[in-house]
Amino acid sequence: MARLWLNADVGESFGHWQLGQDGALMPYLDLANIACGFHASDPTNMRTTLQLAHQHNVKIGAHPAYPDLVGFGRRSLACTPAEIENMVLYQLGALAGLCRAQGTELSYVKPHGALYNDMMREPEKLVAVMQAIAHFDHHLPLMLMAKANNQEARELAQPFGLQLWFEAFADRAYHDNGNLVSRQCPGAVLTAPTQIIEQARRLALGEPLMTLEGSALLLQADTLCVHGDNPESIKAVAAIRQLLDNLG
Amino acid sequence: MARLWLNADVGESFGHWQLGQDGALMPYLDLANIACGFHASDPTNMRTTLQLAHQHNVKIGAHPAYPDLVGFGRRSLACTPAEIENMVLYQLGALAGLCRAQGTELSYVKPHGALYNDMMREPEKLVAVMQAIAHFDHHLPLMLMAKANNQEARELAQPFGLQLWFEAFADRAYHDNGNLVSRQCPGAVLTAPTQIIEQARRLALGEPLMTLEGSALLLQADTLCVHGDNPESIKAVAAIRQLLDNLG
Amino acid sequence: MARLWLNADVGESFGHWQLGQDGALMPYLDLANIACGFHASDPTNMRTTLQLAHQHNVKIGAHPAYPDLVGFGRRSLACTPAEIENMVLYQLGALAGLCRAQGTELSYVKPHGALYNDMMREPEKLVAVMQAIAHFDHHLPLMLMAKANNQEARELAQPFGLQLWFEAFADRAYHDNGNLVSRQCPGAVLTAPTQIIEQARRLALGEPLMTLEGSALLLQADTLCVHGDNPESIKAVAAIRQLLDNLG
Amino acid sequence: MARLWLNADVGESFGHWQLGQDGALMPYLDLANIACGFHASDPTNMRTTLQLAHQHNVKIGAHPAYPDLVGFGRRSLACTPAEIENMVLYQLGALAGLCRAQGTELSYVKPHGALYNDMMREPEKLVAVMQAIAHFDHHLPLMLMAKANNQEARELAQPFGLQLWFEAFADRAYHDNGNLVSRQCPGAVLTAPTQIIEQARRLALGEPLMTLEGSALLLQADTLCVHGDNPESIKAVAAIRQLLDNLG
Repeated sequence: MARLWLNADVGESFGHWQLGQDGALMPYLDLANIACGFHASDPTNMRTTLQLAHQHNVKIGAHPAYPDLVGFGRRSLACTPAEIENMVLYQLGALAGLCRAQGTELSYVKPHGALYNDMMREPEKLVAVMQAIAHFDHHLPLMLMAKANNQEARELAQPFGLQLWFEAFADRAYHDNGNLVSRQCPGAVLTAPTQIIEQARRLALGEPLMTLEGSALLLQADTLCVHGDNPESIKAVAAIRQLLDNLG
Repeated sequence: MARLWLNADVGESFGHWQLGQDGALMPYLDLANIACGFHASDPTNMRTTLQLAHQHNVKIGAHPAYPDLVGFGRRSLACTPAEIENMVLYQLGALAGLCRAQGTELSYVKPHGALYNDMMREPEKLVAVMQAIAHFDHHLPLMLMAKANNQEARELAQPFGLQLWFEAFADRAYHDNGNLVSRQCPGAVLTAPTQIIEQARRLALGEPLMTLEGSALLLQADTLCVHGDNPESIKAVAAIRQLLDNLG
Repeated sequence: MARLWLNADVGESFGHWQLGQDGALMPYLDLANIACGFHASDPTNMRTTLQLAHQHNVKIGAHPAYPDLVGFGRRSLACTPAEIENMVLYQLGALAGLCRAQGTELSYVKPHGALYNDMMREPEKLVAVMQAIAHFDHHLPLMLMAKANNQEARELAQPFGLQLWFEAFADRAYHDNGNLVSRQCPGAVLTAPTQIIEQARRLALGEPLMTLEGSALLLQADTLCVHGDNPESIKAVAAIRQLLDNLG
Repeated sequence: MARLWLNADVGESFGHWQLGQDGALMPYLDLANIACGFHASDPTNMRTTLQLAHQHNVKIGAHPAYPDLVGFGRRSLACTPAEIENMVLYQLGALAGLCRAQGTELSYVKPHGALYNDMMREPEKLVAVMQAIAHFDHHLPLMLMAKANNQEARELAQPFGLQLWFEAFADRAYHDNGNLVSRQCPGAVLTAPTQIIEQARRLALGEPLMTLEGSALLLQADTLCVHGDNPESIKAVAAIRQLLDNLG
């Protein structure tokens, strides 16, 4: 990727319950992280979401998670690496199965919620996810979080021959090490549109961000994570899209 | 298939709960119907079962079901054809995903329990299953029940280009139309080993069975369904296996 | 009850997913049918809903269902009467357990969705529900659908000593036997506010309705089922509430 | 309790899957920890288990857990204290609801698996469990693990007016602080019947145990946790039962 792609979590409805503004968000995306039934969605919702992504030429990513519908996959579950490897394989396969009915296919993998956080913190869980992807199709990139230093992740991926896509956030403050500032802290979430656009611009052009500690942080980001929860956030995404198109 | 293949439901453990004698049964099988997590099994159990089947050169079949762990997929659930199509695609994909980690692949599909029964009774549900398989891989045969007249099933399968594998039972009494006699009725289940072996022999050689009503019933069977619930039933399977090997 | 009470299904959110306008609807209700975790809701949502009902002095009803989150309890599941009895006991108990934390208690029971429909059609399933309530607390009334003839339901309830509350609908057309006209048919759902108010008025005053077939249908209704899905339906409920208060 | 009571986890079957030897174990027990559907069991299995306990005059304890059937409630799930309080209330209520159908009632509460371990490690989770019990019925004792020092647990329970029952293990080695030696370590699990009986005797008579570190550890135990997984363990329970009866 020569430029910064936009990714978002979509397909998070479940049965009768609707969530998100997928229809409004999809036109602005490059990459759609699609829930696989463990933290959200079900076979019919998955198929509807695949269809929508396909219509908009948005690449389809599997968004596997811990099996926790009530907690929306946001609660860490103490799984073994083998359990993680197998649950990721199961979810990749399930989404890929539904892709066949829409004449499309998976393009990458981004773990969701607590699984994502756990994998960023615990190398053996990151390796379990990598192992699953390598078994499934080693051409599928893994999306994970851009840090100040991505060397460890690159070294873990190398034996699997896996490509890594690093993602950054335009609306979050960073620490020196590249971790996000906790939402508990003041200033953790950027809300002013001009600030968000400015951070997106810096990330797109490879310029450093200013961390909470006051240092310059250079993130190597392939993609920017955006959200489509409400009309306000859709507007922000549209603005970022326009910025990136102008830069491109 | 020039001969009668043996199929059985395997991989029906779930989490901590063990079920069946898969290790003892697998050596006698040609075809392993593997649970996909909706009525039984979970990603780790599925992988263990795939590995066992692969070791014994047993072909792997997906055994999709209604989402009903408590009822073991034996309770009919009033799903729409679209829901059935999507849940079958999901389960085929999930099992296929785990197959990749074991260097193996799906060879056929046999719906489980209430989904199997409903599909035999309601053509639109049979079509939904066929549509799912055709989307997934139209080279995968669908296993269903041999009746006195299989014409309707063949006609439904034809537009999808799907191959059908018809299965029969060596230990069950039949009605004239090819339906099984209900377990409620006396004589519905054959228990004498000699009777079971004799019925298997007739099915293998294309000889007619005697129905409950006293007519001759000719079933075109590609495969025989056997069970590995306990040591007694494993012995019966071993005897049928030996019979078939001697005939072959 | 000397008058027509208003009941509605509430507490149908699930985990992260919100559903319904409970906050706007609750002030108009007499009876709140609260989901018990099988078709919707979870322990924390149940408690929040109980609290809201309690604040508004709305009586708390258990709204048990088949275990089917994906299908929102609207798909019939072929359960035995014993399974139904036990799943209703489980759900009554679970909601009653959470009631204790809010200093409140159950006042009645109304089965949900497919369980409600199945119980209206199959006497043995109705008896299973009655048996569960009688075991739990035979002072709790069972809410079910008012028909042209409620005699059979009364006779089934009598040995259990259960009180029955019959409910009617202000926005639905009826057949002569008291069944609702299927939503598939034109005219099945009343949408004009004046029609809905007029039907509510007739039900409240014990005047007959005109059926689809053109006959007069007298329904003995204790309560009217209303919906709070959207702002429009909340307005309709407010109008019915005002009508009933004026009549009372 | 003037003596050492025997408790065991029972009712751990789920749907079609059988687990444990409840029928053989129950006659030796004083206290039955009954699964509530979150880590094992279902409404019908719960009722069958209640009936069995009731027949043998065994006191019924609720055995609530994290919602994790696949992991049998043994995987820690990062829940908030409010979520824990509500899920415990839900499960206590559900089991109590089924008790009513068997003319029996709850006598105590023992959290299961990872919830038990988390509550022993994190005071705010222990308080959440206590709060749930206090809301439900503050006369129900909470069973938890006897440590070298039980003072903190007693202080947390005091504002709720809750009684605590401390449990010890006859077949496990202890550290000085009263923690169990990890199963990973050699000598963690006692297997020689004479050793197990001797440890049970010491616990029953209030004599100290020898810890792994070589110190004397005095545990104030109200109850002994035993297991009925297989015929061998049933024999061990029978021997402990006889010992205790002889001491009593």
